[in-house]
Amino acid sequence: MGKGRFITFEGPEGAGKTTQIRLLEDYLRLKGKECITVREPGGTPIGDGIRQILLSTEFSDMRPRTEILLYAASRAQLVDQVIRPALEQGKIVLCDRYVDSSIAYQGYGAQWDLQEVIQINEWATGGLKPDRTYLLDLPVEMSQSRMKNRGGKKDRMELKEKLFHERVREGFLSLAQSAPERYRKLDACLSKEEIFGQLAEDILNLVKD
Amino acid sequence: MGKGRFITFEGPEGAGKTTQIRLLEDYLRLKGKECITVREPGGTPIGDGIRQILLSTEFSDMRPRTEILLYAASRAQLVDQVIRPALEQGKIVLCDRYVDSSIAYQGYGAQWDLQEVIQINEWATGGLKPDRTYLLDLPVEMSQSRMKNRGGKKDRMELKEKLFHERVREGFLSLAQSAPERYRKLDACLSKEEIFGQLAEDILNLVKD
Repeated sequence: MGKGRFITFEGPEGAGKTTQIRLLEDYLRLKGKECITVREPGGTPIGDGIRQILLSTEFSDMRPRTEILLYAASRAQLVDQVIRPALEQGKIVLCDRYVDSSIAYQGYGAQWDLQEVIQINEWATGGLKPDRTYLLDLPVEMSQSRMKNRGGKKDRMELKEKLFHERVREGFLSLAQSAPERYRKLDACLSKEEIFGQLAEDILNLVKD
Repeated sequence: MGKGRFITFEGPEGAGKTTQIRLLEDYLRLKGKECITVREPGGTPIGDGIRQILLSTEFSDMRPRTEILLYAASRAQLVDQVIRPALEQGKIVLCDRYVDSSIAYQGYGAQWDLQEVIQINEWATGGLKPDRTYLLDLPVEMSQSRMKNRGGKKDRMELKEKLFHERVREGFLSLAQSAPERYRKLDACLSKEEIFGQLAEDILNLVKD
């Protein structure tokens, strides 16, 4: 049984997180590794209920504290019900967004006190930190034009203005810079094959034992 | 315009909180006071969505941290969207359960760290405290037999075992003892008229200016 590894993916909508996670999942399975993929908010029946509230466009009057607490609640359930048990079984857990998304969106984006966002999430997760975080970095204009091309209705987070998303990007970049041992920044403007090439090179070292 | 007053009601299910709140609302209106009544969890469209998740019997695997964060999220929204604006307009706000319910149920009942429950709620409410809290105290057996007579399906909180509810009662009593300037303990075994008599005597002093 291998040692469990907790790997998170961060970055804006349209950066290709889902695509890279799927490629990585197949790749790790081919290498004989057991892995599971979860997404935030959600990933559990309770978390999916919370996700519906968080992303519903009906709730435009959601207060910042409410939003921070709801993301933390969904995360607390996911960590305790899914992520920790999988890590204890030696699995690799791939997670689409985690605490750093709250810091980037609610902290940097919505300009709420960073330390408060960090403390609540520290408590919600019982201090569980990723072994590796891949930041798929993308200029805001590209994220927005990709989302436009995808079509469909925008959710509550996507509807926020451009300046908000600029601050979110700055937030992710600053998080990556402050934790170089954990973060790998990938250029999401590259083709999915190029991005995955860089990712695969890095991941083998991380999961080798 | 009078000075806003924030009045909360605590105690177990079946203690008569709803009845007393209705009587008090009518009484205050007769005295020419503007008042609103809210209930927890819920009291806003977002809070009602959270309430559904919290009380659903489907979600028996809800983790303690998730539960604490969800109650706090519903409360954050209620305070910011409804309670604070009403108080600023000089209204009297009657609230069916508030922070002390989280301390009693999640702290004393579920035996989670009291200080953590208190801190998260302090943050969620921006430190808003009631001017008066009425504790309708009732022995656990009486609460349970009254709920049985009411019929209907039990929700997730009501299904917890007797020892849990004994600890919740102890929690409320200890909160009342530690804040005598804010708390008034009422004997919920008395008739609704007798209880309201005591309550009405106390309230006039509180809302006189």
